[in-house]
Amino acid sequence: MADSLNCDLKSLTPLQLFERVTEQGEKVRALKAGKAPKDEIDAAVRMLLSLKLSYKTATGQDYQAGLPPKDLVLINNGTTKEEDEDLVDPWNVQTSNAKGVDYDKLIVRFGSSKIDTDLINRIERAIGQKPHHFLRRGIFFSHRDMDQVLDAYENKKPFYLYTGRGPSSQAMHVGHLIPFMFTKWLQEVFDVPLVIQLTDDEKYLWKDMTVEKAYEYAKENAKDIIACGFDINKTFIFSDLDYLGTSAGFYKNIVKVQKHVTFNQVKGIFGFTDSDCIGKISFPAIQAAPSFSSSFPQIFNGKENIQCLIPCAIDQDPYFRMTRDVAPRIGQPKPALLHSVFFPALQGAQTKMSASDPNSSIFLTDTPKQIKTKINKHAFSGGRDTIEEHRKYGGNCEVDVSFMYLTFFLEDDDRLEQLKQAYTSGELLTGELKKVLIETMQPLVAAHQERRKQVTDEIVKQFMTPRKLAFEF
Amino acid sequence: MADSLNCDLKSLTPLQLFERVTEQGEKVRALKAGKAPKDEIDAAVRMLLSLKLSYKTATGQDYQAGLPPKDLVLINNGTTKEEDEDLVDPWNVQTSNAKGVDYDKLIVRFGSSKIDTDLINRIERAIGQKPHHFLRRGIFFSHRDMDQVLDAYENKKPFYLYTGRGPSSQAMHVGHLIPFMFTKWLQEVFDVPLVIQLTDDEKYLWKDMTVEKAYEYAKENAKDIIACGFDINKTFIFSDLDYLGTSAGFYKNIVKVQKHVTFNQVKGIFGFTDSDCIGKISFPAIQAAPSFSSSFPQIFNGKENIQCLIPCAIDQDPYFRMTRDVAPRIGQPKPALLHSVFFPALQGAQTKMSASDPNSSIFLTDTPKQIKTKINKHAFSGGRDTIEEHRKYGGNCEVDVSFMYLTFFLEDDDRLEQLKQAYTSGELLTGELKKVLIETMQPLVAAHQERRKQVTDEIVKQFMTPRKLAFEF
Repeated sequence: MADSLNCDLKSLTPLQLFERVTEQGEKVRALKAGKAPKDEIDAAVRMLLSLKLSYKTATGQDYQAGLPPKDLVLINNGTTKEEDEDLVDPWNVQTSNAKGVDYDKLIVRFGSSKIDTDLINRIERAIGQKPHHFLRRGIFFSHRDMDQVLDAYENKKPFYLYTGRGPSSQAMHVGHLIPFMFTKWLQEVFDVPLVIQLTDDEKYLWKDMTVEKAYEYAKENAKDIIACGFDINKTFIFSDLDYLGTSAGFYKNIVKVQKHVTFNQVKGIFGFTDSDCIGKISFPAIQAAPSFSSSFPQIFNGKENIQCLIPCAIDQDPYFRMTRDVAPRIGQPKPALLHSVFFPALQGAQTKMSASDPNSSIFLTDTPKQIKTKINKHAFSGGRDTIEEHRKYGGNCEVDVSFMYLTFFLEDDDRLEQLKQAYTSGELLTGELKKVLIETMQPLVAAHQERRKQVTDEIVKQFMTPRKLAFEF
Repeated sequence: MADSLNCDLKSLTPLQLFERVTEQGEKVRALKAGKAPKDEIDAAVRMLLSLKLSYKTATGQDYQAGLPPKDLVLINNGTTKEEDEDLVDPWNVQTSNAKGVDYDKLIVRFGSSKIDTDLINRIERAIGQKPHHFLRRGIFFSHRDMDQVLDAYENKKPFYLYTGRGPSSQAMHVGHLIPFMFTKWLQEVFDVPLVIQLTDDEKYLWKDMTVEKAYEYAKENAKDIIACGFDINKTFIFSDLDYLGTSAGFYKNIVKVQKHVTFNQVKGIFGFTDSDCIGKISFPAIQAAPSFSSSFPQIFNGKENIQCLIPCAIDQDPYFRMTRDVAPRIGQPKPALLHSVFFPALQGAQTKMSASDPNSSIFLTDTPKQIKTKINKHAFSGGRDTIEEHRKYGGNCEVDVSFMYLTFFLEDDDRLEQLKQAYTSGELLTGELKKVLIETMQPLVAAHQERRKQVTDEIVKQFMTPRKLAFEF
């Protein structure tokens, strides 16, 4: 029925057209994979081509998989030309600037606070050790109410961590690890419980996927998450499709949030339209509810006022701005947040990595050889066109993807600084910098694969079983 | 999807046309805002005007932004004046006719089928006994696919019953008993399991009420429902707030329905607006989901294709029209329905009884004295102004509320017919007819109160515990 609304292509928005092309592309792939009759495949392909033509007519651009047309949250990135605006929402991240999104502007736009030296020093004093390099290097760059979390911590008041993932496909890439690596560190240094939401219901609602498939992806992704080294006694991982049917408190919080958010609001925040299904429209409440400890009575012994801290990429902030707006109206504390920058695609910092394009990222399933080939072939270089020019003028670390990746994964500050100096001065060539990255990523991915192998179905089941964690509340 | 590209305007429903006009309007605004070329804007405006014309031709009304066509709810009641139209939806029942809503017109409007003599006879043959007086007297007057249920029953294929209640306050009135009395009879004669949904989440969303209060009402109302005499071994009563957090299958069906219904659709069906909370907007899926047996894996042993039969008042039909539309798209059988007329208020058949006005109804908590006073004081009479006139011209049973109530509660057909003759001929006076009603209602309510006293919290808990019922599937 929803389809019939869209029967006139001319009346569709560019985003709707984009979705139609994507769906038709998936249909063609499914037909081919299922070895459908040739005439059926041909008809689907013709339809695909016609949809792509309509898309091009409407937008003036060729359809590119994974790159929807810009239309939601536009952030002006230093110039007045439209092409230079950043687009950031839970489903899209786009910028035309090779350095990536302008995060200072994003902080102003979103109304969050910068993680400055004072805050980093305060964290250091609170935990009595050097803060994670993601903090020191500005990878987690923005926050909401982190001071309050530290106040509570210093007064021996408990808090808990909440992060999550939308399990869209079996393979995760190294960018997906960033929030989990950081969350694991937070869990260790603060010694607090952690809940991890797998939004398989969201993926079912947004994608052409069965409920069963979405749940299967959730369990597969849980293995990669567990392989990050979370403490089984302090971590609860849950699939929405599964946990909603086993928790006394979760649905009650969902319906409370749903009562206090109107369609007008989610339209404004997420860009939903009247043609969207009611599942999408009400979903934001499901991502909001784990911010309240009463969603986990088994963990918090029914206590309802435990402070929540959410480490996540900045594109998830719209969900939690909404949550923070609702919280006082349902008698709950606002969750605090720590926001990370986006992880760049190998091709450059203009876009977030995409799990659907194997060459855009290093996947956690890649072999050492694949990693080497991908980096050598696809990692965007900030080096010069010729060796002579490079030696003379030096490379540009601000746009060089290999260097960006090293800021994420090379823990040794001195070594990173050396590389930066050497590359900028022209002493280090692009190929040499790439070699350092290859030698960093190969053992990192191999070690992850090794740990993942140890994660049995039984261990996944334990992590995903609602239970008391090793804390007293 | 492919087919939808070829659709033409004439094949669209008023709602689809409405959506097309809305989308085209948005497009025109976007073009103007984006300062598109004049000829492009002109073309879009021409398309908009042509769509508006099609809309007016189809509906006889001008397009009004934000006001979808009242596709389901307006029934012309015998005259052409708009003020004389019946309004029927899950929250309102209004008619200006003292006889009540014109149910034959409602059948045409809703697209359901009349329960005719053939069907009643077929039910009699199937169950080997006289059908309930609610069927014989047209109190359950309309159905969807009841033939299919009987086909299945005659072929020894199982089905199950589903009905429900929105627990808005502690006190229920006798009108609330109608669907439950009938459902109890269906359960007995067909020997089938029954699920009863208490939509406490709905009440929380619609009313100024806490989650805890709504749940408390649900448990209180469960006592009155249990007092109707349902078999504890064959009946599962559930509160949404409670059961959603304890069932593996319920949420999965909810999210499946939510994926296949758009905001435009619920706007058209239920009249929601952009200012409504997202909880209301997604709620219809929660009333839909119990129509699918996989929502109750504990009862049906995980079987997903068990036919469902829903006895309910006709005002609930919009929920189930939506459900029947979605069912085949999520691989589930459409639920069948049996629709009842509305129970009249004491003051007359123009409105449905209201639990919030104590004088509009006989409550299940009323004393014999209160019942007597209410009937004598408030029951609208079809009698004449003076005894002389009444003796001469007789009373009008079609508008007399005491007589209407007796058609619901006086089981003896011969006695009812005698009363009708005597009242119509003028032999029986209003006071005498009211006396018969008082003598019918007092023991009925007293017996209910007696049974309700026996319903302990422990019994409620048993009925509301998800469990296997006494059936093999």
